[in-house]
Amino acid sequence: MQLYMGIDGGGSGCRAILADSSGTILGMGTAGPANIGAHPHDACAHIKCAALQTLTNAGLEAELLSTLKVTLGLAGAKSVLNLQEIADVLPFKESRIVSDAITAFQGALGHGDGAIIITGTGSAFVKRIDSDYEIIGGRGFMLSDHAGGARLGRELLEETLLAMDGLAPFTSLAQQVAHHFDHDIRQIITFSRSAQAADYARFAPLIFRHESEGDALAQKILKRACEHLCQGLQRMGIESLGRFSMTGGLAASYLGLPYFPCRDHYVTPAGDSLQGALELALAM
Amino acid sequence: MQLYMGIDGGGSGCRAILADSSGTILGMGTAGPANIGAHPHDACAHIKCAALQTLTNAGLEAELLSTLKVTLGLAGAKSVLNLQEIADVLPFKESRIVSDAITAFQGALGHGDGAIIITGTGSAFVKRIDSDYEIIGGRGFMLSDHAGGARLGRELLEETLLAMDGLAPFTSLAQQVAHHFDHDIRQIITFSRSAQAADYARFAPLIFRHESEGDALAQKILKRACEHLCQGLQRMGIESLGRFSMTGGLAASYLGLPYFPCRDHYVTPAGDSLQGALELALAM
Repeated sequence: MQLYMGIDGGGSGCRAILADSSGTILGMGTAGPANIGAHPHDACAHIKCAALQTLTNAGLEAELLSTLKVTLGLAGAKSVLNLQEIADVLPFKESRIVSDAITAFQGALGHGDGAIIITGTGSAFVKRIDSDYEIIGGRGFMLSDHAGGARLGRELLEETLLAMDGLAPFTSLAQQVAHHFDHDIRQIITFSRSAQAADYARFAPLIFRHESEGDALAQKILKRACEHLCQGLQRMGIESLGRFSMTGGLAASYLGLPYFPCRDHYVTPAGDSLQGALELALAM
Repeated sequence: MQLYMGIDGGGSGCRAILADSSGTILGMGTAGPANIGAHPHDACAHIKCAALQTLTNAGLEAELLSTLKVTLGLAGAKSVLNLQEIADVLPFKESRIVSDAITAFQGALGHGDGAIIITGTGSAFVKRIDSDYEIIGGRGFMLSDHAGGARLGRELLEETLLAMDGLAPFTSLAQQVAHHFDHDIRQIITFSRSAQAADYARFAPLIFRHESEGDALAQKILKRACEHLCQGLQRMGIESLGRFSMTGGLAASYLGLPYFPCRDHYVTPAGDSLQGALELALAM
């Protein structure tokens, strides 16, 4: 009997889920990061680990790997020039690699037109009309992803430095960040020399907490991020699409903001990108 | 007879100048980058090369290195926890390492109170009252240096991506950047994965050129940078200091902008940071 696997891989980990052709879940597994754009070799290794763990958890033999039909929603897939090359080295019978933005869409909205916003470490917008997807953003925090946690964290550290230099107000949030680095500017700079997206993103929850307490810096950063969300939704044509959903680690925090945009068109996501990947696998 | 050397080291190269105790110039030399904060080992190697080349150009023996009194103005010096450790491994009789901001000040304004703005790959403000220096900014383009070339270049690439995503106007400047990357967003992302400060800074002159042709994006980026310069000058207390100067690779370009701030207090720099380093060495 043909088995199907959905895999969701991002900057902080990857997850796999196994089902039979009726969609009955047989097992799940997890492993390390699988950003195929930034670290393709590691990503493939972690994907294999998650898939093997899933078979083990389902009480099945490892050699079944080579019989699986698998859809993989992977961070960074958009930036890879030749996805087939990567699909070819995976140990499955059939591998379909798509952006994790597409599996997130499928999981959140299922069938039909609409848009989603993804806000985790990075941020992106996805629109689907009929079966045509358009993805914008999600290109890494260095130049993009204005509503992602990494970008929020980087802006926070930048504003904290300005405050420590007397060039910006020293709000309670900035003071807390300064305290985290022992009020030593050099520690912040040393951090920034090696910090990856996930390191900056760790500061994002702190910003949302201070926002709710009225901190002016937190509000400045999050209002700017919400303006970006609003622009993205306009760009997607939210008025004519009629509905959007939001997924990712920061979705709930954003939804709690009083100035979150286009709330009238918001719908709760039906599921996550792992479920989306499995739905797409079952359709292979 | 005691000889004196001034050394100026930054992210794109280092220069050395040798003089006798009367200040008569005997020779000069150049070598690779010497950012002591980012790459201390390379910096020391390049400093030694520049010093040796200077002795050679002056027709002097290499072993004179160990007799020199040297003042080094080095990028990144502020972020180094123990400068003495680095001074100890240099091959000179006496080494005084200061921030290149201080040698730039000395070169530009000589004696007396005042402020300078440094805008090259990075940007910083330096104030001196009596013999007390205050330096702000100059902490690297990731979190600081809002008027430096690297930051301008990064903002340009970011705005170009937004334009390619339909989230910002596609000005003539953005089109030229898109063309540079074959209109392929992936090429921009690939560039950003490994680009260093100097790589981003290479786009800065393009921004100034388009500014003079009225490009809206160029003006947006440079107006934001000039607002930062204005804030920095206010923070330094320019009204009571009375004078400031500007040095670094982008100084002339900034001075050409119609919205360059506080022009009434601007004075032309007397010399550069290499001359400043030599002046400080002669006072050792």
